Amino acid sequence: MRNDDGMSNEEGGTYVNPGGEFTRDQRYIATRITADGRDGYPVEPGRYRLAVARACPWASRMIVVRRLLGLEDVLSMALAGPTHDVRSWTFDLDPGGRDPVLGIERLQDAYFARFPGYERGITVPAIVDVPTGQVVTNDYAQMSLDLSTEWAAYHRAGAPRLYPEELRDEIDEVNRVVFKDVNNGVYRCGFAGSQEAYERAYERLFDRLDWLSNRLANQRYLVGDTITEADVRLFTTLVRFDPVYHGHFKCNRQKLTEMPVLWAYARDLFQTPGFGDTVDFDQIKRHYYEVHKDINPTGIVPSGPDLRGWLDPHGREALGGRPFGDGTPPGPVPAEETVPIEHTPYAA
Amino acid sequence: MRNDDGMSNEEGGTYVNPGGEFTRDQRYIATRITADGRDGYPVEPGRYRLAVARACPWASRMIVVRRLLGLEDVLSMALAGPTHDVRSWTFDLDPGGRDPVLGIERLQDAYFARFPGYERGITVPAIVDVPTGQVVTNDYAQMSLDLSTEWAAYHRAGAPRLYPEELRDEIDEVNRVVFKDVNNGVYRCGFAGSQEAYERAYERLFDRLDWLSNRLANQRYLVGDTITEADVRLFTTLVRFDPVYHGHFKCNRQKLTEMPVLWAYARDLFQTPGFGDTVDFDQIKRHYYEVHKDINPTGIVPSGPDLRGWLDPHGREALGGRPFGDGTPPGPVPAEETVPIEHTPYAA
Repeated sequence: MRNDDGMSNEEGGTYVNPGGEFTRDQRYIATRITADGRDGYPVEPGRYRLAVARACPWASRMIVVRRLLGLEDVLSMALAGPTHDVRSWTFDLDPGGRDPVLGIERLQDAYFARFPGYERGITVPAIVDVPTGQVVTNDYAQMSLDLSTEWAAYHRAGAPRLYPEELRDEIDEVNRVVFKDVNNGVYRCGFAGSQEAYERAYERLFDRLDWLSNRLANQRYLVGDTITEADVRLFTTLVRFDPVYHGHFKCNRQKLTEMPVLWAYARDLFQTPGFGDTVDFDQIKRHYYEVHKDINPTGIVPSGPDLRGWLDPHGREALGGRPFGDGTPPGPVPAEETVPIEHTPYAA
Repeated sequence: MRNDDGMSNEEGGTYVNPGGEFTRDQRYIATRITADGRDGYPVEPGRYRLAVARACPWASRMIVVRRLLGLEDVLSMALAGPTHDVRSWTFDLDPGGRDPVLGIERLQDAYFARFPGYERGITVPAIVDVPTGQVVTNDYAQMSLDLSTEWAAYHRAGAPRLYPEELRDEIDEVNRVVFKDVNNGVYRCGFAGSQEAYERAYERLFDRLDWLSNRLANQRYLVGDTITEADVRLFTTLVRFDPVYHGHFKCNRQKLTEMPVLWAYARDLFQTPGFGDTVDFDQIKRHYYEVHKDINPTGIVPSGPDLRGWLDPHGREALGGRPFGDGTPPGPVPAEETVPIEHTPYAA
């Protein structure tokens, strides 16, 4: 997520492009961390730090994938707070407001360390080279795939195959339409600058959700019979749907809870180790409602929705499928990365 | 509804009182139209014109009660459009933008005709004396009761008893708490100027909705076993809940569709002649989302929610009850007062 959520017309705190469509700035730092180190950044345990915010759906993909693959001890994580100003994400959750490993208060410092005067969005997720303090990449779409492929030597025993070669074409194709109409589609609804742009985005979003409902009616996961990268990418949008997108972004044909197939699918994933245990609903709501002052000028954060339904039985085991394939679920969340229980459905 | 929805801190287009609570200005013109004419305005067929907007929940009570009691030919109706500026409701739906009977473009003209320089809110519902063009009253709480009592001589044959003497104490008490926590409670959520004020209003709202759900679980109507004024007053808020209050006012613990008893109760009333046939969902949404620029600066009106559920069977006949008591349902809506089908759940 850009510090401005990808808004092209970048001004302090404005996200809507009056009269027009929302266009996500998709120019990212394309450097890759690879097994062979061809871009100058070889995969190395302990060398890099993953900067994320639990609020952000794009960063949350990385949190989920890292945990599913058991990379916690190999790639450490810096957690930015849920809100930020125009000068980017800050480490205000840490003692002294400073990331203890990188020693910086603002994520922009890692960007400037490598690119003085960097002018594009200061976004999470980003991976920072700890020895130099320089950002390596913020190319979120490539980054999570690279965890599956380039970092394979360091996966835990029993790690699932999230991007198996024989399914890549299908995963890529699903990811492409889900990005366009859903992951980014909700932003196109919320930041539309005209009624027409909003209505076009809304139609595409719900048409695609209907398509996904059909696809998932008799099939437990999006591609193949195990969880893959495609499920991770849809999950991080669905989990924000009712708390944020439904009201704040006016994606309100139905709530997720009123789309039975997608709701059961989302609950199934939520209850799968590695998914729901990474979700902080409090940070999610605070981020969107406090940061987007141009669509929520009061900054008031809704108290709802009631979250307890996330823990209801989903019944999708009946469709078969093997969540982790020949692998196993990840173990418990490390204590220092646990989401506060009062920010979860377990609080009630 | 005031032209400013009752905001005390009245400035052009602002409804939120920053840092504080929303306080509804409840000073209305207390003149009454009575059978004995003691305030100088006796009940007389054809003499008065009821000014309303279908968008407004307070005015909609009058539309429902007038129709249930069959007063259409006795008390004519002026329909203001769904949106307005700081200079009050306008008759922009009429040819030439002018009410054909009163001959005015803006409702404020009727207020100024009686009170030059009138400084309080120009609100609907209001009743205007046609011969003088002067407003008589805008005291919405008294006005609908007076239709039941003072205008009794002109009720249609078979009109229901909406405010029967033997139930008045109970109806008044229910109306009192429903007004405080629900009818006005949703505005207290939406126009709260601080997180604390919002959270207090939200809790009171949903506590009261839980209380109402309990009350209505085994009882078809709020008071007694027939529809009364109490049902009319709760209905006009419930019918706006999902299209407006849930998202725009952040009343989002659940949607109405997720509160089974209240949802069935609301559908039962919606499907009862005199209730649903007065509801224009398009005008309702346009009013709130276009007028309250300080909480919806883009003015974009959501496309949702899907309305078709309003026509689903409600099953509440099983609780007994006799909607119209010893009376009968009203006949069809007069052609000139019909809501356009594309603004209703029948469109789909």
